Amino acid sequence: MNFRSDNTAAIAPQILSALNKANTGRAAAYGGDAWTQLLDEAFSQVFERAVRVFTVATGTAANAIAIASLVPPWGAIYCHREAHIEVDEAGAAGFFSGGAKLSLLDGAHAKVAPSALRAAPTGLDIHASKPAALSISQASERGAVYKLHELEALGTAAQELGLKYHMDGARLANAIAHLGCAPAAATWRAGVDVLSFGATKNGAMAGEAVVAFDLDRVEAIEKQRKRSGHLLCKGRYPAVQLLAYLKGDLWLRLAADANAMAQEIAAAAGALVSAPVEANMVLIKPGASGLQRLRDAGVSFYDWGPGEARLVTSWQTSAVELNALCALLRTLR
Amino acid sequence: MNFRSDNTAAIAPQILSALNKANTGRAAAYGGDAWTQLLDEAFSQVFERAVRVFTVATGTAANAIAIASLVPPWGAIYCHREAHIEVDEAGAAGFFSGGAKLSLLDGAHAKVAPSALRAAPTGLDIHASKPAALSISQASERGAVYKLHELEALGTAAQELGLKYHMDGARLANAIAHLGCAPAAATWRAGVDVLSFGATKNGAMAGEAVVAFDLDRVEAIEKQRKRSGHLLCKGRYPAVQLLAYLKGDLWLRLAADANAMAQEIAAAAGALVSAPVEANMVLIKPGASGLQRLRDAGVSFYDWGPGEARLVTSWQTSAVELNALCALLRTLR
Amino acid sequence: MNFRSDNTAAIAPQILSALNKANTGRAAAYGGDAWTQLLDEAFSQVFERAVRVFTVATGTAANAIAIASLVPPWGAIYCHREAHIEVDEAGAAGFFSGGAKLSLLDGAHAKVAPSALRAAPTGLDIHASKPAALSISQASERGAVYKLHELEALGTAAQELGLKYHMDGARLANAIAHLGCAPAAATWRAGVDVLSFGATKNGAMAGEAVVAFDLDRVEAIEKQRKRSGHLLCKGRYPAVQLLAYLKGDLWLRLAADANAMAQEIAAAAGALVSAPVEANMVLIKPGASGLQRLRDAGVSFYDWGPGEARLVTSWQTSAVELNALCALLRTLR
Amino acid sequence: MNFRSDNTAAIAPQILSALNKANTGRAAAYGGDAWTQLLDEAFSQVFERAVRVFTVATGTAANAIAIASLVPPWGAIYCHREAHIEVDEAGAAGFFSGGAKLSLLDGAHAKVAPSALRAAPTGLDIHASKPAALSISQASERGAVYKLHELEALGTAAQELGLKYHMDGARLANAIAHLGCAPAAATWRAGVDVLSFGATKNGAMAGEAVVAFDLDRVEAIEKQRKRSGHLLCKGRYPAVQLLAYLKGDLWLRLAADANAMAQEIAAAAGALVSAPVEANMVLIKPGASGLQRLRDAGVSFYDWGPGEARLVTSWQTSAVELNALCALLRTLR
Repeated sequence: MNFRSDNTAAIAPQILSALNKANTGRAAAYGGDAWTQLLDEAFSQVFERAVRVFTVATGTAANAIAIASLVPPWGAIYCHREAHIEVDEAGAAGFFSGGAKLSLLDGAHAKVAPSALRAAPTGLDIHASKPAALSISQASERGAVYKLHELEALGTAAQELGLKYHMDGARLANAIAHLGCAPAAATWRAGVDVLSFGATKNGAMAGEAVVAFDLDRVEAIEKQRKRSGHLLCKGRYPAVQLLAYLKGDLWLRLAADANAMAQEIAAAAGALVSAPVEANMVLIKPGASGLQRLRDAGVSFYDWGPGEARLVTSWQTSAVELNALCALLRTLR
Repeated sequence: MNFRSDNTAAIAPQILSALNKANTGRAAAYGGDAWTQLLDEAFSQVFERAVRVFTVATGTAANAIAIASLVPPWGAIYCHREAHIEVDEAGAAGFFSGGAKLSLLDGAHAKVAPSALRAAPTGLDIHASKPAALSISQASERGAVYKLHELEALGTAAQELGLKYHMDGARLANAIAHLGCAPAAATWRAGVDVLSFGATKNGAMAGEAVVAFDLDRVEAIEKQRKRSGHLLCKGRYPAVQLLAYLKGDLWLRLAADANAMAQEIAAAAGALVSAPVEANMVLIKPGASGLQRLRDAGVSFYDWGPGEARLVTSWQTSAVELNALCALLRTLR
Repeated sequence: MNFRSDNTAAIAPQILSALNKANTGRAAAYGGDAWTQLLDEAFSQVFERAVRVFTVATGTAANAIAIASLVPPWGAIYCHREAHIEVDEAGAAGFFSGGAKLSLLDGAHAKVAPSALRAAPTGLDIHASKPAALSISQASERGAVYKLHELEALGTAAQELGLKYHMDGARLANAIAHLGCAPAAATWRAGVDVLSFGATKNGAMAGEAVVAFDLDRVEAIEKQRKRSGHLLCKGRYPAVQLLAYLKGDLWLRLAADANAMAQEIAAAAGALVSAPVEANMVLIKPGASGLQRLRDAGVSFYDWGPGEARLVTSWQTSAVELNALCALLRTLR
Repeated sequence: MNFRSDNTAAIAPQILSALNKANTGRAAAYGGDAWTQLLDEAFSQVFERAVRVFTVATGTAANAIAIASLVPPWGAIYCHREAHIEVDEAGAAGFFSGGAKLSLLDGAHAKVAPSALRAAPTGLDIHASKPAALSISQASERGAVYKLHELEALGTAAQELGLKYHMDGARLANAIAHLGCAPAAATWRAGVDVLSFGATKNGAMAGEAVVAFDLDRVEAIEKQRKRSGHLLCKGRYPAVQLLAYLKGDLWLRLAADANAMAQEIAAAAGALVSAPVEANMVLIKPGASGLQRLRDAGVSFYDWGPGEARLVTSWQTSAVELNALCALLRTLR
C-alpha cells in the first residue's frame, strides 16, 4: 500500500496518450512547436486573463525561477518554516536569486498567518536584507488549503509591505478542487504575481510551469529558465502534457478524485488526524507504535513529525489499497 | 525538407516504446526507482569502468553542472570561441559556477588546438582568473570530430597546465560512430574528467546526463543538480530513455545512420562543403544566392556564417527529403 | 554622551601615528610592501602557530570571505538567530558563498548552545542544504563571552557533525581581555578553522582581517578577497594598522580599558542590566520611560529589544561622560 | 627609479593632513558622519548635476558594483580585450553580477572603437547572453585618452544598441587633465550612466567611489556595496580623502603634474614610444635588450607586451629619478 507521495505515480493515461500522439514528424525546437504555441492561450483561458507560461522540469525549478524573478540578490523572501523552498530544495532560491535569503514565519498547518507576516522585520536599514517577496504553498506542506479570504489578506499585507507575492502551486489542482472556486480567484485576483503551477504530482511525467501574471517578470523568467538549463529543445513534450492536463478540466478531475480518497482516509482515521484534510494528503498522529503497525502491514509513508505520518493519494491509488488502509486505520484509533 | 537541427526530431520509436512500458505502477521518487538504479551499471559497462550518471533535462544543464563541479568560482574555463557553452547557453557556466568565466581559444573547425591551449595565459597572478578547466565539444559545433590522438594531446596539455577536462558530448554518439572506437578511448582514457552525455539530439525526448569519471566530483554534481531543479521526482522517465538508448547499441546505430546521411549530402554538395563532415552535420558555403535557392526550394537550415548553411540529419530524416536535398545541392555546385 | 557603538570612535593615537610614519616613499603594491610582509609572522606569534592573514575593509567582508572558504554553495551555516551575519550583513554570506544559507539556532545571550547545535537538522538527504559550518560571534551580539569550555564543546560538536568552525571576532580583543587566556586557547585550540579578526571597533580606522588556521582555505580566501575588491593596492595602510594594534598588546590594553568602563556602567545600572557584562557592552532594560529619560539627558544608544538599550564603550569614551552616565543610571534603577 | 605604478606612491600630503584633522571625536557610523554627508554635494558640483557617490575600498569593487548595477545576471558587458575588468579583477564583474560575462572587443591603444561595438553580436536570441552594457577605461590601459567625440560616439552607439554605459575612471583625473574639459563633458554628457571614480592612484590611501549619474541605480549600488563588505563603519576616513582630493582641484593638479612628467619621459624616449602618451603612463618598446638595460640601471616597471615596458608617474615621482630615467632613455633610442 503506497501512500508515500503522489510523485510515485505513473503518468495518467490521458496525458501519456497525448504524449504519444504528439510524437510525429519534426517540430521547431525551443518552444517554436505548435503545442507550445498554444500554452499561453490555454492558461490564459483557465486564469481568465493574459498570462505567460514557461515549462520547466521540476517544482524546484519553477519555484526558484519564479522567486528569482521577483526579488533582488539582496532580498529576503518570507515563507513558512516548513515550506518546500526552505526544507526540500537545497537552497535553490538562494542560488537562482544570487544570494537572497528565506526568512521563516510561523503559522498553523504550514500556512503563513497574515499576522506573522505583518509582525516580520521590515528591513528598512542598509544592513538588513530587503524584504522583497512572500511565498506560500497552496496546498500547504501539511495538506491545508488557504481560503480565499486568507489568500486575499496575505495579498493585501504583501502589497502594503512592498512585497511581491509568489505561490508554490505544486498541488494547486487539489487546492482549487477543494475550494471549488475559479483559478483566477485563488491566484492573481488575490494578488499573486507569479505562480509555480504543478502537474507532475497530479498525473504528468514532468509537467511544471512558471505562470507569470505580472508580465514585467517575463524577461527574467525566460532568461533564467534558459541559463538554468530548463528550456527544452523538444518543447512539444512538456507542452503537450500541460495541454492534456488542462483539457476538459482533467487537472481538476484528477485532483478531486485524489482529494475524495483523502477524505475517506480521514474518516477512517478519525481522531488520529492531525491537520486539516483539504487536499490529497492526510496527516495522522498514531504515535510510534501506531506507525509501526502501519509499516508492519505494508503501508509506505513519510514520517512527518514525532509519531506522525503523511499519507498521500493520487490518481493511481487503487480502491483495494485505499480500502485496506482505511480498515487498518479504523483499528488504530 | 527539414535540415535545421537534429533536435527537431521526434522520439525514436524504440525509446518511446520503453517510456510507455515503464508507465506502470508506482515507483520510488528522486531516483529510487528500478530504472535509475540500473543507470550507473549500464554506463559503467559502456565506458568499461565505474562511473556515476546523473540525468538532467538539457545539454545546457549537463554542461553547466559538469563545469561547475570542476572549477572554483574564480576559475577560467578554456573553450573554443564557437563552443556551445559560449554562444548558446546564455551564461549558464558562469551562473552555475558562481562567476567563473570562459576564456576563448581559436582552432580550425571549432576544435581547440592543443597549441592554442598551451599558448593561453597561465593566470598565475592574484589579479587573474585562475585557469581551471578545458571544455571541448565532441563532435564540434562545425561537425568536426576530434581524433583520438587530438583528444589525448589535449588531455596531456590539460594535465600539465593543471586544468580539469570536460567534454560536451551533445553529439558524442555521432563522434564515436565516426571514430569507430571504444567510448572509453574517446573519453576518460584520453583524460576526460566529466562528460556531458547527450541523447536528445539522437532520438531521446529529453535525455541528457552528466557522467562522472572523476568520482570526487559526485557530491558537487549531485547537489548542483538538485538545487538547479534537475532532480526529477519521477526519475524513471529520464532513466528509461537512456537505458533504451544504450541497449543493443541503439545510440551508435542511430548515430551511424545519421552520419551516413550526412556523407550523402556531402558527396552531393562537393566543393561547397566548408568543414570536415565527420558527424551528422554538413556545413556548406554556397554564398547568399545559393542559400536563397535552398530556401526557395523549401529547405530549412540555420545560417552558420556569411553565405554558409548548416544542414543536420537525424534518425527521422526521410529518404525522400534526403534525395531531394542532394539533387538540389548538385545543381548548386 | 555617546554610547551608541565603539565604531563611532576615531583612530587610536598609537595607530594613527603608525599610519603617518608609514607614509614615506614608494611601496610595492598588493601586499608586496614591507609592512604586509610582517603580518603573517606577527599574527603567528600572537596565535602561537603558523597562520595566514588577509586584511579586508570590514567585518562583513571578513565574515563572508571566511565563511565562503568553508562551505560549498549548497551548504548551510549554523549561527545564532541574532548573529551579525544574519541580522546586519545584508546577505553577504549567501552572496560570497554562491547561495549557501544561514540556519538559525537559539541560545541565551546570543551565544549558540552546544545542545542547540546538536539538535539541529543533519541535512543528510539530497533535498536539504548540507550543514557545513558553525559560525559564532566572540564576544556575542549581547556582550556575552563564550568560556573556553563552551568554545571547546562547540568545536567538538562541530567536528562530530562534520562542520567547519568560524569565529566572528569583531570584538575578539574584548573577549580575550575578559577571558585572560592565550588567543590560541580561545581560537584554534578550541577547533576554530577561520577567524574574522576585528580591530576597527577597538581603535583602528578600517582594520579587519581573515585569519586562516586551516591553511587549506588560503587559496579560497585569497581569491575571494581579490574578486570581491578587498585586495588593496596600497597594502601598507591596513597592514600597519594591524601591526600597531598588536604591538605591545595594544589591542588587549585598549579592550581591557573599554571592558573596565563597561563594568563601571554595569555596577551603576545594577538590576537594570539584562545580559552578562563581559566585554565592552552593557545591555540594560529600564523600560520605555527609562529609555526616554536617558535620551532626554543626551545619551545616545541603540534600542536593542523592547525597553532595552545597548551601551557600548570604547578607547575614546571620556571619564566625564562615563561618570555622567553612571550617575544617571543610578537614578533609574 | 620606481616607475612601476602610480599605486606604489604614498598618500599625498594634502590628503594625509585632512585624514589627521578628521580624527577627532566620535562620528556617526556607516556614512552618517559629517564628511560623508558632504560627498554627494561635492561631487555634484564637480559634475554639474545631482549625483550620488558611494565610497569603496578599491577600483575592482567600484567597477564590479557599478557594472552589477547596470546588467542582469544573464547580461554581457562589452569591453576592450585589455580592460582591467577582464585582465586584472579575477572575475569580479561576473561575481557581483551573478554570472554576467564580458564580451571582448578590439581597438587601438586599448580603446574600444565604436565600429567594433557596432559590429558585435546583438544577442537577440534566447540562447545568447543579453548585451547589456559597455564598459570603457578612461584613461585606457595603454595610457590613451578617449577624445570627447569618441566618448560621445560610444554613448550614441550604446544607446542605440540598448546598452548601459560604464566608465572605469581609475585614472579619470589624468584623462580630464589631458582633455582640459569639464568633468561633465567627459562623463554623463557623453552618456555615461555610472562611473568608477579613482583617487588611489593619484594620491589617496584607498579612495575609490561609484558615482551614479543614473539615479535609478542607487538602490542596487547601495545594497551591493553593503553586502560585498564595502560599507565602512568609520565612513569619515574614505569621505575625507575624497573631499580633500576634490578641494581646490587637487585631483586635477596632481594629475597634471604626473601627466607632465609622462610627457618628459615621452620626449626622452622619442621613437621608442609605442602608444599615445596622454595620461601619466608611457609605453615604450625598446626590445628585450633595451628592457634589460633599464632593469640593470635600476628602473622598475611592468612588462606590458613583448619587448615593451609600461612606465608610470605619480605625484611622488621625484625630479631626480625623472631626470635619470630620461637620460637613460635618450641613450636607448
